[in-house]
Amino acid sequence: METKYSQKKKSFLQEFKKLLSFETIGADPACENAMHLCAHYLQERLTALGLESQLINTPNHPLVFGSNCTAGADKPTLLLYQHYDVQPVDPLELWDTPPFAPTIKDHRIFARGAQDNKGQLQYVLQALELFDKKFPINIKILIEGDEETGSFGLSSILEREKELFKADFLSVIDVGMKAKDIPAVTLGVRGIATFEISIFGPKMDLHSGSYGGIVKNPLQVLSALLASAYKEDGSIAIPGFYEDVEEVDKEPLDFSFDENFSKKITGVDALGGEQAYTPLERAWLRPTLEINGMHGGYTGQGFKTIIPSSAHAKVSIRLVKGQEPQKMLQLVKDFFKKCCPEGVSIEINLHKGGGRACQACPTSLFTQAVKEAFSEVFKAPCSLILEGGSIPITTALAEASKAEPLFFGLGLLEDNIHAPNENFSLDRLEKGTYIVVKLLEKLKKAFL
Amino acid sequence: METKYSQKKKSFLQEFKKLLSFETIGADPACENAMHLCAHYLQERLTALGLESQLINTPNHPLVFGSNCTAGADKPTLLLYQHYDVQPVDPLELWDTPPFAPTIKDHRIFARGAQDNKGQLQYVLQALELFDKKFPINIKILIEGDEETGSFGLSSILEREKELFKADFLSVIDVGMKAKDIPAVTLGVRGIATFEISIFGPKMDLHSGSYGGIVKNPLQVLSALLASAYKEDGSIAIPGFYEDVEEVDKEPLDFSFDENFSKKITGVDALGGEQAYTPLERAWLRPTLEINGMHGGYTGQGFKTIIPSSAHAKVSIRLVKGQEPQKMLQLVKDFFKKCCPEGVSIEINLHKGGGRACQACPTSLFTQAVKEAFSEVFKAPCSLILEGGSIPITTALAEASKAEPLFFGLGLLEDNIHAPNENFSLDRLEKGTYIVVKLLEKLKKAFL
Repeated sequence: METKYSQKKKSFLQEFKKLLSFETIGADPACENAMHLCAHYLQERLTALGLESQLINTPNHPLVFGSNCTAGADKPTLLLYQHYDVQPVDPLELWDTPPFAPTIKDHRIFARGAQDNKGQLQYVLQALELFDKKFPINIKILIEGDEETGSFGLSSILEREKELFKADFLSVIDVGMKAKDIPAVTLGVRGIATFEISIFGPKMDLHSGSYGGIVKNPLQVLSALLASAYKEDGSIAIPGFYEDVEEVDKEPLDFSFDENFSKKITGVDALGGEQAYTPLERAWLRPTLEINGMHGGYTGQGFKTIIPSSAHAKVSIRLVKGQEPQKMLQLVKDFFKKCCPEGVSIEINLHKGGGRACQACPTSLFTQAVKEAFSEVFKAPCSLILEGGSIPITTALAEASKAEPLFFGLGLLEDNIHAPNENFSLDRLEKGTYIVVKLLEKLKKAFL
Repeated sequence: METKYSQKKKSFLQEFKKLLSFETIGADPACENAMHLCAHYLQERLTALGLESQLINTPNHPLVFGSNCTAGADKPTLLLYQHYDVQPVDPLELWDTPPFAPTIKDHRIFARGAQDNKGQLQYVLQALELFDKKFPINIKILIEGDEETGSFGLSSILEREKELFKADFLSVIDVGMKAKDIPAVTLGVRGIATFEISIFGPKMDLHSGSYGGIVKNPLQVLSALLASAYKEDGSIAIPGFYEDVEEVDKEPLDFSFDENFSKKITGVDALGGEQAYTPLERAWLRPTLEINGMHGGYTGQGFKTIIPSSAHAKVSIRLVKGQEPQKMLQLVKDFFKKCCPEGVSIEINLHKGGGRACQACPTSLFTQAVKEAFSEVFKAPCSLILEGGSIPITTALAEASKAEPLFFGLGLLEDNIHAPNENFSLDRLEKGTYIVVKLLEKLKKAFL
């Protein structure tokens, strides 16, 4: 396998750079064309790998689907889930190299999507290539274009295409490990729900001298509303926020947390969230409410003494097992509407998409196969972890495809996903390839 | 006087449009050249009016100065204070016509600075022109370029140039009236002090899934800090904030407030500030703390699920009689620093400039002369009011010039100063001219 990999290394890297060069920011309407070009490019790659491929149109971006089910009805079917859309790139000025001009430095490739998820998609495609069109099991692969914006496209066509997606196992290769030498498989991810909250005050910006003390300031109101959602101990003050949280068996999970390493990556101490829990309990087992963006008034050079006419915030809730996105959004909406004072108006725009948390079984054949593949490639025992992030579509996709889901991947904190200078190490690109190859072979054996 | 005005009306308007076309946003470094061009243009206009004129360089923008003291040592000297810098223009998309392309519609001229302060400067220059270089009293005029950004330039050269600015009376023609048919003279303005507050968290934007619940969110911290500065009753919670507030004799002042008219202009009820006071008491006699701008995280199209690395706010304090800007800034700085939690760092950047509140004498000869000029032109009794806005340099300028200060002007709420679609009515441009002419004549008579 290693020899074959080194023979193909150059062409692998060439294709990877090509994949990374598409400006596939799903949230940005200006990237519409790049999204289409990338989807077509991926469809061609799937065909070249020996899969029957197609683009499936959705109300949002197209998804790319491929399958090769020639292994036989007695063999299991693995549905591989990936995505080709990426996060926005700003603040652009903090990137050392342009986000869509992939650059290799110190055995790492820097680009938006280098890890999330184009890097992890690339090693899946590399693994499939190593089989030379003769797959040990039946393969389906689904590459969506709306993951970072809530998977609205995929969720819209899920019911219609459930036969197409039908599988025994669903691998969601969009997560990571705790450290580069400690392999891990992820049993679950948090769910997510997002919304925007706007406060509207005077019908135009007003002079803060003439009106300071006369009208309510929307930025002051929004700050106070957001602040009121948090208690002193870091917990969320919104009534019912924790009501549906289900207990999770903590026993198989590795909650160890390297404070020093985390501080090295983030530059700050792990002092956020509910102080009654350890850092990884907070990130894995507890729902959170985060302000992702906020703006209002004059934010340019110098100063402008105004009372702004409006103020805006983008907020996301991470959900854990038991919590329903729509119910949680309604709870939060009701809270802010009730707390909003007179003299301004409030508008809360709940986003489509989002999804429930998803948790896999720690002892299944599938989990065991993935654990073994990781252990063998890393030559170290594989631990079980959870992920604080979300792959919103997973629960619904697992239900539609009737497949057992599992999350894994070779992401690391240092990859800077969703941030400037996102990167992925070439070493892990290779290891990931081997893990996927081994997984396919192990699933074949398990069904002999 | 009216005949002469109508003869010159066309050329007055031509000069006014020229003055409004200079993009003199003092806060914007890109407007540097426009500031210089406008200053030169004004110097030439002063020379043409029969004044000895000069540009005075400052550490910021140049100021324009002119004088004609040929009326004689037995005549009083009036120092006219104006400014040629204007507020920034954003949100640009809310302007119906370009802010630096003056446009006349329904007997109003629309442009940034149409009232504040180029409109009020224009009628002062028109009044001087009507005297045909033969002034009844000694005239000095000072037109600064840093008013909207805190008058740092003028304050820097004030001590050095105090002989040049020496005068008996200082007219600050940069305020307004309560309604278009109710003339008023402004006995005082609030002071101002401004600062920026930044919260720094992780060294880069982090994935809000992986880190939500682990690290502190700078937007959450900043919202909570700002919210903590306000009490439920609308008063400011910062210890000592009201300590130095001096009582003001309310008797001569007209505190009547037209709620309906205010709502028509602003679109909202007058529910801001301290509920224990009436609207105009709040705007005139009480200090306020306003958030003028705030930003952090992702604020573009769509959504980006990050914990931002930093959050920022621009804040201004309006000061009343008795309060020192530097002391108040220190109070506020100490409060926020003390309240800032662990896990993030705080930076508070106090701005230069700012200034104390200023209050004039309601019964002086100067106040009487201005009141009479307003009454005669408007054919209605003139009331005494205060102004919630600030002309930060006034107190220091009055001290340096040894002149008695007074504030007046023909501004109205409907002029949209500091906001999109700023405008000034041509009718008031004419009335303002007559008021200044009458004032000069009245001051001459008073000294006969």
